[in-house]
Amino acid sequence: MTEEYEEGEAVITRVVIDVMKPRELPLIDLASALCLVDGVDEVHIIVSEVDVKTETMKITVAGNSIDCDELYKTLEDYGCALRSTDEVVAVRK
Amino acid sequence: MTEEYEEGEAVITRVVIDVMKPRELPLIDLASALCLVDGVDEVHIIVSEVDVKTETMKITVAGNSIDCDELYKTLEDYGCALRSTDEVVAVRK
Amino acid sequence: MTEEYEEGEAVITRVVIDVMKPRELPLIDLASALCLVDGVDEVHIIVSEVDVKTETMKITVAGNSIDCDELYKTLEDYGCALRSTDEVVAVRK
Amino acid sequence: MTEEYEEGEAVITRVVIDVMKPRELPLIDLASALCLVDGVDEVHIIVSEVDVKTETMKITVAGNSIDCDELYKTLEDYGCALRSTDEVVAVRK
Amino acid sequence: MTEEYEEGEAVITRVVIDVMKPRELPLIDLASALCLVDGVDEVHIIVSEVDVKTETMKITVAGNSIDCDELYKTLEDYGCALRSTDEVVAVRK
Amino acid sequence: MTEEYEEGEAVITRVVIDVMKPRELPLIDLASALCLVDGVDEVHIIVSEVDVKTETMKITVAGNSIDCDELYKTLEDYGCALRSTDEVVAVRK
Amino acid sequence: MTEEYEEGEAVITRVVIDVMKPRELPLIDLASALCLVDGVDEVHIIVSEVDVKTETMKITVAGNSIDCDELYKTLEDYGCALRSTDEVVAVRK
Repeated sequence: MTEEYEEGEAVITRVVIDVMKPRELPLIDLASALCLVDGVDEVHIIVSEVDVKTETMKITVAGNSIDCDELYKTLEDYGCALRSTDEVVAVRK
Repeated sequence: MTEEYEEGEAVITRVVIDVMKPRELPLIDLASALCLVDGVDEVHIIVSEVDVKTETMKITVAGNSIDCDELYKTLEDYGCALRSTDEVVAVRK
Repeated sequence: MTEEYEEGEAVITRVVIDVMKPRELPLIDLASALCLVDGVDEVHIIVSEVDVKTETMKITVAGNSIDCDELYKTLEDYGCALRSTDEVVAVRK
Repeated sequence: MTEEYEEGEAVITRVVIDVMKPRELPLIDLASALCLVDGVDEVHIIVSEVDVKTETMKITVAGNSIDCDELYKTLEDYGCALRSTDEVVAVRK
Repeated sequence: MTEEYEEGEAVITRVVIDVMKPRELPLIDLASALCLVDGVDEVHIIVSEVDVKTETMKITVAGNSIDCDELYKTLEDYGCALRSTDEVVAVRK
Repeated sequence: MTEEYEEGEAVITRVVIDVMKPRELPLIDLASALCLVDGVDEVHIIVSEVDVKTETMKITVAGNSIDCDELYKTLEDYGCALRSTDEVVAVRK
Repeated sequence: MTEEYEEGEAVITRVVIDVMKPRELPLIDLASALCLVDGVDEVHIIVSEVDVKTETMKITVAGNSIDCDELYKTLEDYGCALRSTDEVVAVRK
């Protein structure tokens, strides 16, 4: 309204996902790997359920411009199943 | 009271809407598109219900002067149904 | 006690009202109109109930000196029914 | 302990009262009147119950030195019944 | 540990007490009197129960060095019964 | 990891304990005594249960380097029974 | 996205673990030992369950780069059983 064309780019700064990982994969390793995804600054994992072979986790990923494709690919590379994406925050940069 | 005629314009700075989207549309794409609507600075999506073909979401849109017509049109363009507008904040600019 | 006669004027800085509006009136329009009432700076509307023909809303109006007569008149002009005034804040100016 | 005689005066800075007012008295008028009581800076009224002829309210009165006698007298002048005093804060000035 | 002998004095800075007072004693008067006890800066009274002849109150007394003997004596002087001391904070001065 | 050998010393800065004291011992005296234990800055006592001869309390002790042995000894000297240690915070100095 | 290759290293800054320790091991000693693990700055232990021979605790370990291997080894050295890792925070350094 104030300007006819606003410039800018939308970037993803927070994603909350529900993930199932194999129990033999250490949480520490998964957290570290996700933290090195392009545009990620912090990864917070909370374990919500532990089964014989798997653990279900709520993972909050924050950063100034999260590369979601790389995020999802990293999960896959580590043998994790993305059960759902629960929250997304996008901001205009 | 203090002045006979106050100048100014009312702008919408926050809208909370309940939206249903087709499951094949990635959340990330919807968040990014809404974030580029005129006058929007941030979009926060929380998924509240997942069905076979659709997802229901609570979307909070914040900005310094949200173009609501463009916001609603963008939702439509992405095949989303606006179920309700739950909150609106207007401020005098 | 400290001074025999204190000067000053009482102004209303916040009003919380319960209002019923016709469904065909857009929330955005109502919020904008109330925001331009004399002495109002911000209007926050939360929809609490949706019926076939009406919507019930909790409206918080804030400002440095709200003209309540004009506020109530504006509601009326827009075809809204004031169901109750739930909160009022007055401050000495 | 640190000084044999401490000087100072105790002043009331907050009073929370439960009040019943006649419905025909506008909340705005009562709030404004209480706000002009000696030593009062802010009055916050929350309506808790509405009956046919009366409204019951929780009134929080704040100020740097509230004249409680004048406060109670003002309530009486406006036809309000003080049901109880629920909270009092006194500070040494 | 870091120093063989630490100097200093312990002072009481907060006391929360449960008190029963006769109904004819105004809350305001009790709050003001307790506020003038040596070392007290603020008194917050919340009425919790009202009976025919008495009122039960939770009184929080704060200050930089509360003279508890004088506090308890003042309560007695005003015909109040100390039912219990619920909280005490001591700090090294 | 960043340095082969990190220097430093671990100190206890907060302890939360569950303690039973004889009723004839004034709370104020116990709080003051614990406050003078080496390395203690503040003692917060909340009474949780009152019996005929004893009172059970939750005591939070804070300081920059609490001497826990002296703390436990002081409790004993005052005829108090340590029922449990519920929380401990240690920091690297 | 903004840079092709982002540099940096992921470090663990917070770990929340569920641990069972023998009752004869003092909490203070365990807290101090964990606090001296490489990269740890603070250890917060909350006892959740006390049995005849063991105590179950929730331990939050915070630091600027926690050496988790050393953390787990220290627990083992003290005869403690790691029941689960409940939370992990990793940040890009």
